Amino acid sequence: MKRWGRKHLLGLEGMSAEEINFILDEAVSFREISERPLKKVPTLRGKSVVMLFFEPSTRTRASFELAAKRLSADTVSIASSSSSVVKGETLLDTARNLEAMKVDIIVMRHSMPGAPHMLARHLRAAVINAGDGAHEHPTQGLLDLLTIRDHFGSFDGLCVGIVGDIAHSRVARSNILGLTSLGAEVIVCGPPTLIPRDIDRMGVQVTTHLDELLPRVDALNILRIQLERQGRSLFPSLREYSRIWGVNNAVLDKADKKLLIMHPGPVNRGVELAPEVADGEHSVILDQVTNGVAVRMALLYHLSGVAEMERADEAAA
Amino acid sequence: MKRWGRKHLLGLEGMSAEEINFILDEAVSFREISERPLKKVPTLRGKSVVMLFFEPSTRTRASFELAAKRLSADTVSIASSSSSVVKGETLLDTARNLEAMKVDIIVMRHSMPGAPHMLARHLRAAVINAGDGAHEHPTQGLLDLLTIRDHFGSFDGLCVGIVGDIAHSRVARSNILGLTSLGAEVIVCGPPTLIPRDIDRMGVQVTTHLDELLPRVDALNILRIQLERQGRSLFPSLREYSRIWGVNNAVLDKADKKLLIMHPGPVNRGVELAPEVADGEHSVILDQVTNGVAVRMALLYHLSGVAEMERADEAAA
Amino acid sequence: MKRWGRKHLLGLEGMSAEEINFILDEAVSFREISERPLKKVPTLRGKSVVMLFFEPSTRTRASFELAAKRLSADTVSIASSSSSVVKGETLLDTARNLEAMKVDIIVMRHSMPGAPHMLARHLRAAVINAGDGAHEHPTQGLLDLLTIRDHFGSFDGLCVGIVGDIAHSRVARSNILGLTSLGAEVIVCGPPTLIPRDIDRMGVQVTTHLDELLPRVDALNILRIQLERQGRSLFPSLREYSRIWGVNNAVLDKADKKLLIMHPGPVNRGVELAPEVADGEHSVILDQVTNGVAVRMALLYHLSGVAEMERADEAAA
Repeated sequence: MKRWGRKHLLGLEGMSAEEINFILDEAVSFREISERPLKKVPTLRGKSVVMLFFEPSTRTRASFELAAKRLSADTVSIASSSSSVVKGETLLDTARNLEAMKVDIIVMRHSMPGAPHMLARHLRAAVINAGDGAHEHPTQGLLDLLTIRDHFGSFDGLCVGIVGDIAHSRVARSNILGLTSLGAEVIVCGPPTLIPRDIDRMGVQVTTHLDELLPRVDALNILRIQLERQGRSLFPSLREYSRIWGVNNAVLDKADKKLLIMHPGPVNRGVELAPEVADGEHSVILDQVTNGVAVRMALLYHLSGVAEMERADEAAA
Repeated sequence: MKRWGRKHLLGLEGMSAEEINFILDEAVSFREISERPLKKVPTLRGKSVVMLFFEPSTRTRASFELAAKRLSADTVSIASSSSSVVKGETLLDTARNLEAMKVDIIVMRHSMPGAPHMLARHLRAAVINAGDGAHEHPTQGLLDLLTIRDHFGSFDGLCVGIVGDIAHSRVARSNILGLTSLGAEVIVCGPPTLIPRDIDRMGVQVTTHLDELLPRVDALNILRIQLERQGRSLFPSLREYSRIWGVNNAVLDKADKKLLIMHPGPVNRGVELAPEVADGEHSVILDQVTNGVAVRMALLYHLSGVAEMERADEAAA
Repeated sequence: MKRWGRKHLLGLEGMSAEEINFILDEAVSFREISERPLKKVPTLRGKSVVMLFFEPSTRTRASFELAAKRLSADTVSIASSSSSVVKGETLLDTARNLEAMKVDIIVMRHSMPGAPHMLARHLRAAVINAGDGAHEHPTQGLLDLLTIRDHFGSFDGLCVGIVGDIAHSRVARSNILGLTSLGAEVIVCGPPTLIPRDIDRMGVQVTTHLDELLPRVDALNILRIQLERQGRSLFPSLREYSRIWGVNNAVLDKADKKLLIMHPGPVNRGVELAPEVADGEHSVILDQVTNGVAVRMALLYHLSGVAEMERADEAAA
C-alpha cells in the first residue's frame, strides 16, 4: 500500500489492518519531526485547518493544533456550545460556511454520534472526527494502537484488556474496532451496568472481574471515569468503583507478567488508576500523548491532498 | 483611482462609488489566492492583526483570521464580554495597550454604535469595524456588494430588496449606504414595527408586503431574525413572521424573474428563509462567504500600510 | 555576563543585579524588532510555546503571544478555569502532557502561589511564571525595571514608591525584589490594612501617607485596585480610597520634582489614578506595555535553548 485512499477520518469501523498499519507507519516517520530541535516542516504551507469543537477539550485540541502548526498549516479554532440544541441543518450550515472560506480540513468534536459522518456526506473538505458522543474517537484509537505496536512489535497473539465504563466510551469503541481489525484479542472489564449487553458482537470477550482479566492480557487500557457524568448513578460510589475496578500495584500482582499500562488521560489519580501505576515503569501514558501528535500529523498530511499532489509531481518528473 | 486613501474602515457611510469599486476590484484579485492549492502569500509578513471581539462571533472572526493568515500576518484573538458595562475610557485604554504592543490593525466588534469610530480618533493603528451594535457592518456590506456585482456586472438600474428586521440590522444599514452610493435602488420590507420611521431619509423605499416588493427587485437580501433579541416582543410570533415575511418558493413565484437570493447567515431555516430557497440554484449565500474572505484580505492589505510601502518602493526604483 | 544560566523564569526572588541587567540589555535589542515595518525574525522557528492560563488575562496573554509570534514560534493557547478545585497532581499531569507533545516553553498563570515552581521541578520544558496568585509576576517586574532604567539610566540612588494594595499584589512583590536587587530604594504606601506587617523584611520602607512618600521618591508605581476582590471589605469605600491614596495632579504638587508615573494596567481611572496623570507627560504607562513585549521576546529566546545552540554553532565555527 503506497497511498491512503480515504477522504475523511470518521472512525476505525471498517478500516482494514493494511490501512491502519499504513497510517501508523506514516505516524512513525512524522514523529521524528517533533524530536528535532526545530520542529517544523513546510509540508502543509498554504493549507487551512479548522478546529470545530462543540465539546470542551484541552488536550486533543492542543495536540491537533501543534500537529497542524508543525506542518506549517494555518489553523483557526472555533469553540461552540452544544448545550443549546443544535439542529443538524444548522451544524451543516456552519460547516458549509467554513468550506466556502476554502478550508481544507475540518477537525470536529461533537456530542452527537454521527455528526462528522453527516458533514462528510455533504462537504468536499476533509473531515476528521475528534470524538462524536459515545461513538468513536479514531485518532485516540490510532495513537493507542501505535503505542501498543511500538512496544510489542505486532498484534499477533496479543490480548488487550480495556477497563472501565465501556458503555459510554468512544475510546473503548475505537480501540475495539482497531484491535480486532489488526487481529488482537480484546477483553473488556468493568461494572455490569457499564458494559453494553451486545458488546460481544464486536468480537470481544467480557468479564466483570479484574482477577479474571489480569492473567489473560498483555496490556491494559484503563478508561477515565467521567466523574461529571455517571459518577453518582451507574455504580454505587467512586470509592466502591476504585476498590473493585481501580488498578494499583496490588492488583497488578495478579497478572503473570508485567502489563503495559495505558490511559487516554486525564487520569483521575486514585480512582481508576493509582499514582504508583500511572507513574510506574510500565506506564506508557505519556508515550500515548507523544504518539497522538505524530498520528495527527500523518492524518493531516494524507487528508490534505498534499500527498496526492506530491505523487502527481513525482509521476510527472 | 490607484490607491485607497482611508486609514480605517469604519463604515460605508460617506464612501464614494469609486472607493467602493476600488476595494471590490482589489477583492477580486485577492479572491484568486484562496482558490489556489497553496493559499498563502507573504504580503503581510511581519504585520500584527488583533481581533478584538466584545460580542460573540464565529463566522466573521474565522473569516478575518483566515484572511490575515493567508496574507502571512500574525494574529491574536481577544474575546471579551461587554455584558459588564464597559466605559468608553476603558475600551480606549485596551486599544491603546494593543497599539503600544505595536499592533498594525485592530479588527473590532462591539455592541456600542460608534465604538470603532472612537478608537479611530485616538489611535495610529488602523481600525476595522466588524460590527458596532445596530450601526454598521461594513465588511459584510462590501461582500454583499461584491456578490451582487459578480452576478449583474454593474449596479446601474438595479433594484435590491432587503427583507426583515431593518431597524436593528447593521447589515441592512451598511447595504443601504453602499447600494445607494453605487446608484442602485433599494426597497426595504418587513413588519412595520421593525422599520425605522425615517428610513426614507437614507434614500430607500419602504413596503411592508412581500407581494409589493417582489415584482420590483432583482435581488433579495434576507436578514436573519435575531431570535435571541426581539423574537417575542416586536412581532406576534415566529410562525406569524414566517407566514407573512418568510421567503419560500411559492412567494418567489410572485416575482417576474428569478431573483438573486442573499442572506448574511446563519440562516434560521424555515423562519425567514425556506431551505428550498437557501439551497436553491439562485442562492449565492455561500458565494457571499467566499467573497467575505476576499474583501477582508483586500482591506487588511490596504490598511496595513504595505500597499503604501510597495508604491514607494516602485517609485524609488 | 555573556549568557543567561536559568532554565525557567519563576520569579525575581534571588536574581542578581547582573542577571537582571543582562535580560534588560537583551530586551533592548529585541525591542527594536517591534519598531520595524516588518516585525518578524525567524529566531524561534520550529519552537512550540504554550500559554497555559488558569486565570483570565487579556493583556499579558496578548503580549506573550505577539512576542512569540514575532520570533516565529508556534503558539497554542489554553484557557482553563481554576474555579473548580484543581489538585496539584492534575495540574502536573496537564503540564506533563504538554511536555509529551514536545512543547519547549510553558507560559503559565495560576491562582496558586508556587504553581509554576512545582511544574519547573518536574519538567524538562522551560516554565515562565505569568503570575502565580499574590506571589510574583516576574515579567511585569522586568518590564517595570526596564522602563525605569530607560528613563534614569541606572538605579543608583534611585527611590521608587509603590502605592496601593501591597498585600495582594504580585506586581508589588516582583518590583520590590527586582529594585532592591538592583540597589534602588523602595517605599511602599497604602492603607494600613493592605500592607503586610513584615514587609520591611523585604528591605523596603513603609508609609501610609502620600504626603510623606512624595518628597522622597523619583518614580511612582501605582497599583491597580482590584475592584472585584477587596473593594468592599479591606478599606472603607472606593471614594475614600481615591480621596486618600488616589494620585492626581494636586497630590503630585507635593513632590519636589516631576515623578515618573507607572501603572501595570488596566487603570481604574479616577480611582487609584486620575486621567490627567495617567495621560500626562510624565506617564510611561504605554512604554511599560511596549517594554513588556520586548522583555518577553528576550526571555522566550533565552529559555528556548536557541541562544545555547547559537553559541555552540559559533564555538564550532
